[in-house]
Amino acid sequence: MTTFHGWAAHASGAPLQPLSFDPGPMDAEDVEIAVEYCGVCHSDLAMVDSEWFPTNYPVVPGHEVVGTIVAVGPQAKGRAVGQRVGVGWHSKSCLHCHHCMGGEQNLCGTRQPTIIGRHGGFADKMRAHWSWAIPLPATLDPVSAGPLMCGGGTAFLPFVVHGIKPTDRVGVVGIGGLGHLAVKFAKAWGCEVTAFTSSPAKRQEALLLGAHRTVSSVDVAELKAFAGQLDFLLVTVGATLEWDALLATLAPKGRMHLVGVVTQAMSVRTSGLLSWQRSISASPTPSPAMLGQMLAFCARHGIAPQVEHFALSDVNAALDHLRSGNARYRVVLDARA
Amino acid sequence: MTTFHGWAAHASGAPLQPLSFDPGPMDAEDVEIAVEYCGVCHSDLAMVDSEWFPTNYPVVPGHEVVGTIVAVGPQAKGRAVGQRVGVGWHSKSCLHCHHCMGGEQNLCGTRQPTIIGRHGGFADKMRAHWSWAIPLPATLDPVSAGPLMCGGGTAFLPFVVHGIKPTDRVGVVGIGGLGHLAVKFAKAWGCEVTAFTSSPAKRQEALLLGAHRTVSSVDVAELKAFAGQLDFLLVTVGATLEWDALLATLAPKGRMHLVGVVTQAMSVRTSGLLSWQRSISASPTPSPAMLGQMLAFCARHGIAPQVEHFALSDVNAALDHLRSGNARYRVVLDARA
Repeated sequence: MTTFHGWAAHASGAPLQPLSFDPGPMDAEDVEIAVEYCGVCHSDLAMVDSEWFPTNYPVVPGHEVVGTIVAVGPQAKGRAVGQRVGVGWHSKSCLHCHHCMGGEQNLCGTRQPTIIGRHGGFADKMRAHWSWAIPLPATLDPVSAGPLMCGGGTAFLPFVVHGIKPTDRVGVVGIGGLGHLAVKFAKAWGCEVTAFTSSPAKRQEALLLGAHRTVSSVDVAELKAFAGQLDFLLVTVGATLEWDALLATLAPKGRMHLVGVVTQAMSVRTSGLLSWQRSISASPTPSPAMLGQMLAFCARHGIAPQVEHFALSDVNAALDHLRSGNARYRVVLDARA
Repeated sequence: MTTFHGWAAHASGAPLQPLSFDPGPMDAEDVEIAVEYCGVCHSDLAMVDSEWFPTNYPVVPGHEVVGTIVAVGPQAKGRAVGQRVGVGWHSKSCLHCHHCMGGEQNLCGTRQPTIIGRHGGFADKMRAHWSWAIPLPATLDPVSAGPLMCGGGTAFLPFVVHGIKPTDRVGVVGIGGLGHLAVKFAKAWGCEVTAFTSSPAKRQEALLLGAHRTVSSVDVAELKAFAGQLDFLLVTVGATLEWDALLATLAPKGRMHLVGVVTQAMSVRTSGLLSWQRSISASPTPSPAMLGQMLAFCARHGIAPQVEHFALSDVNAALDHLRSGNARYRVVLDARA
C-alpha cells in the first residue's frame, strides 16, 4: 500500500489537519510527483471554506505545485522520473473531445480540477495526468515558481487569447497574487500599464512592479476622471466593484476581462457597451501548451512571483496570512520543511 | 430662404405634425438629399417618446434614408447631384480623431446622430456630411433599402468585427427589424442559424427567413435544453431577457453580442463567463466603409429587408403599426406619396 501525507480540510473554516491516505492504484497515464513547493491560492480558501459550493471533505488543497516526478505510468508520454514539473488548477482532461483535440484542454467538459474530487499539493506527494504536469524551464527558480501554475497562468491567458498588443493601454485591477503578476506581464508585453487598487500602500508598490501610473479602484470620482483611457482592463479580484465606472475607463472597442471568481451577479448598464463597442469577458486557467508558453515567457523575461514562504507544517498560519490580506503577494508552502 | 417640409414630434408620445423649417446655410462638406424612402426604426420611437433621455423637441425623426442628391457643397468629395445614396444613424463625424483617421468614424467622440440636434428623413429633404451619404449599389432595390442603413448595418457589424466564420453556430434573438436581417446575414455567411423568439408565429417565419431551427427566447427550460450549442448569439431586442440562460446556450469561447438598446441594467452571473471563457459585447451602427461593404454584400446575396410601406403623410399610422409589434419586419415611409 502507498501512503501520501497531506494536510486536509475536514469542515468549513476549520484548521487543516494532517491526513495520511492511500491514493489507490496509479493510472497508466499518470505521473507521481514528490512535492517541493506549493503556492496558496484564494481558490484553496474557497474549497476549505465551501465558498463556491459545499466542499466534499476531507480535501487536501494545493494546486500551485512544483515538484519532481518520482514515478511514471506505462502510458505517460514525454515525462521521466527526476524531471521537475509544475501542476496547476487542472490535473486531467478527456483528451478526445473537440476542445482537447483543439489544444484547449482547459475547456474540456470533463476537465478535473486538482482539488475537487482528488487531493492536491499540500502533501508530500500528488499525482496528475502526464499532460498536466508541465516541465519547468531549467532557468526558472523552482522556489518561487509554484504561483505561476494557477495565478500566473490565469493572468497570462487573457493577454494571449485577446491578442493584447504592445501598443495597448492595459489596466490591472487588484494588486495581489494574480494582479502583481499581471502588472509584470503587461510591462514585459510592452504595454502602457495602469494599476487599480483600493490600497494606498499598494499604489506605491504597483509602481515598483512596473506600472506607469495608479488609479483608485473604488473612488468613483477618480475612476470617472480616468474615463476612456484603456484598451484592456484585467480585473483580478473576486469582489463586486464599481462595474459601470470601470467599464467607462475603456476607450472605444475596449475590453474588461475578469479572472477573479465573483460570486455575486454582475450588474452593468449595457449602453456603456453598445455606444462604444466594448466587451466584457472572463476566463479560467490555461491549457497545458499555454502554461508551457507562460513558463518560457517568465524565464525569458525574468518574471517571478513575489512570495513569502511557510513550512507546509505551518499551513494554517499561511492560510490565515492570506485571509488577512497582508500577503505580498503570494504564499508558498515548502513541503520539505 | 430654403424650406424643408417634414413631420415632427413636438412632445413625448404626441402624434407627429407637419413642420416646415429653414435648414440654414448648407455646410461646405454637406450634401442635400431629396428623400425617396425612409425606414422607421425603434430608435425613432425612442426619440419621439423621450425614452432614452428628454428629447429636444421639435424633432423630425427618420434615419434610414434613401434618396437622391440634389445639391453638393463645394468641399463634398466623391458625391454628385443625381446620385442615389443612403443615410443611417450618423450624419457627421470629426474626420480627424484617432477613430475617424482609423476608419471607424462611427466611434468618433463627436459623431452626430442624424436625429439628435438635427432633423432627419421623415421629410422631403435632409442633409448629411458627404462621408455619411453612402452610394447605393445600382442592383439594390431602393424601395426596400432604407432599413439597411440603420437596422441592417447594426446587425451586420458584429459579423465583421468579431470575425464570424461559416463554420460558426450562430443564434439570433428577436425576429424583428434587425433580427430578420441578422438571420439572412448569418445564412448568407454560411453559418448554422438558430432563431430565438418569444412568438410562436415567428418561429415558423424564421425558418422561411433561413434559420435551421428555432428556440424559445423566454422559456428557460427550452433554453437550458439548448445549453452549450452556439459560438455566437446576437441579441437584437432591447428588453431584459433571461441573460444567464441565454449565456448558457454558448459553447466554450462563445460570445453574446447585443445590438438592441437595453435601458435596464443587465445582471449576469460571471461564473458562466469565467468557466467557459465566454464574452458579452455590444456595438453601435457601422462606419461609412462598413455600411458600403454591407450594401455590396446585400446586393451580391440578394438580401433585402422585408418591408411594409406607408405614405409619409400616414407617418402616425406607421408609428402605431411599429408600436403594435405587428410590423413584418420593417416599416418604410414613401416620402413622395
